[in-house]
Amino acid sequence: MRITKAVVTAAKPTQHSLPLQRLVDREGLEKSALELIIGEIVSAGIDQICVVVLEGDEERFRRAAGDLAERLVFVKQAQPRGYGDALYGAKDFVGDETFLHLVGDHLYLSRTEQSCARQLVEVARTENCSVSAVQQTRENRLPYFGAIGGRRLPQSSRLYEVTTVLEKPTPTLAEQELVMAGLRTGYYLCVFGMHVLTPVIMDLLREQLERASATDKVPLSPALAQLAKRERYLAMELEGTRYDIGVKYGLLIAQLAHCLSGRDRDLILTELVQLLADQPQGTRS
Amino acid sequence: MRITKAVVTAAKPTQHSLPLQRLVDREGLEKSALELIIGEIVSAGIDQICVVVLEGDEERFRRAAGDLAERLVFVKQAQPRGYGDALYGAKDFVGDETFLHLVGDHLYLSRTEQSCARQLVEVARTENCSVSAVQQTRENRLPYFGAIGGRRLPQSSRLYEVTTVLEKPTPTLAEQELVMAGLRTGYYLCVFGMHVLTPVIMDLLREQLERASATDKVPLSPALAQLAKRERYLAMELEGTRYDIGVKYGLLIAQLAHCLSGRDRDLILTELVQLLADQPQGTRS
Repeated sequence: MRITKAVVTAAKPTQHSLPLQRLVDREGLEKSALELIIGEIVSAGIDQICVVVLEGDEERFRRAAGDLAERLVFVKQAQPRGYGDALYGAKDFVGDETFLHLVGDHLYLSRTEQSCARQLVEVARTENCSVSAVQQTRENRLPYFGAIGGRRLPQSSRLYEVTTVLEKPTPTLAEQELVMAGLRTGYYLCVFGMHVLTPVIMDLLREQLERASATDKVPLSPALAQLAKRERYLAMELEGTRYDIGVKYGLLIAQLAHCLSGRDRDLILTELVQLLADQPQGTRS
Repeated sequence: MRITKAVVTAAKPTQHSLPLQRLVDREGLEKSALELIIGEIVSAGIDQICVVVLEGDEERFRRAAGDLAERLVFVKQAQPRGYGDALYGAKDFVGDETFLHLVGDHLYLSRTEQSCARQLVEVARTENCSVSAVQQTRENRLPYFGAIGGRRLPQSSRLYEVTTVLEKPTPTLAEQELVMAGLRTGYYLCVFGMHVLTPVIMDLLREQLERASATDKVPLSPALAQLAKRERYLAMELEGTRYDIGVKYGLLIAQLAHCLSGRDRDLILTELVQLLADQPQGTRS
């Protein structure tokens, strides 16, 4: 399976300036969140990248992408019709190819030499089907994520065959539909903001959009649930962690995770001890 | 002394997107750095605010200012002729009034009920002269700041009469010119990025600019040094700390200082312990 294209959705109206936020990466280099996301994609050997943005954001995003801007194709989402509609905006860019998809408000840290995107793309190439990255997530976090149901593949500790996908299920619904052998009680597999998808997803999104009224928001999960019925579709637990930078303190936690696992770990630990010693009376340099 | 106006300089070419960066303040509210800076000014009872920006940045800054945008007057710096030139751009806005000046790449945390800007403005009103906020700074940090020389005012632990100002002095020069009774050995008073200045500063800046070639950068320190010769000019150690968000990890440290001294302290400490426990093996949610 050839995977040469990637689509980043970054058109959520509340998150206009999110990909423009600046962080220091594990190597100690200052980058925008968008540069980190593009770097994640490039690390998977992909360099045709489409970014779906709101009208008026292209210029700022292009600037935030720095030297990587020339790799980018921008598509504008005309109406704020939801995540599914934003992804569908990349239909012409994708054509009839399987593609990697990342959301524009998550960052990733791998626990191995291979980046999260690379782990996912390699499995998709081997298994020759759509694969969504998932993370074991406690029940109390279900209101924030799409969650999958299915069964673990024989002889695999990380791969699951997806049978259903639910958008932000209630704990009751999750218990009825998504409980899986092999997970800790009260834990579910929630999506990670990173997928490899066959172009069939675009047909399914078009169907959803045609059925929805012009003002409805169209999420991605129902189309993923349809995908599971239409063709082989796997989920994979990656060796890594996602950081949602769109939530409160999300940027702070993501930045801390980057620098505490990077080359400036000792420097940051020193600063932390200093700050903690100075609090709550205040700080003194 | 009436102080009703403030000038923020935010035209440094390397720091285009700095005031757009988002942080969570002590009350747990998400804001742009620009909103925090404007909030600092407003807390001193000032609401006529001029922001000096590079050509093309006004629109983005206006958006980053949120609801506070209507208080702002923008001035564009035509050429990148340095900090002194940027401040001089606000000449017409300032007119013949004494004004508060803040740099656009620093954030402030007070150790008292009164904000840093309020502390400074109240002293300037009482003393009826220009006052620069300063911070005792170790010798090894001299390459980053302007530093002042002078003498402590009798009966005051926090006020100094300024006799000279040097831009980023070498340790040798600092030892010759800036050593002051009452400071720890190897410490100097460095500027804090916050000043109350009489309009005389604009005349002094004009003189500097006229003397400089068209491509020279004109810093602020020489004009401050002239100011000390021309009229009474004080420096004040505030009850607070400045955070330079333009340096590496500056945003991270500023964010940590805000939340560790704010209402979400326990939440952040919990996250920190979790992150530290998960490192360096990686994190798991």
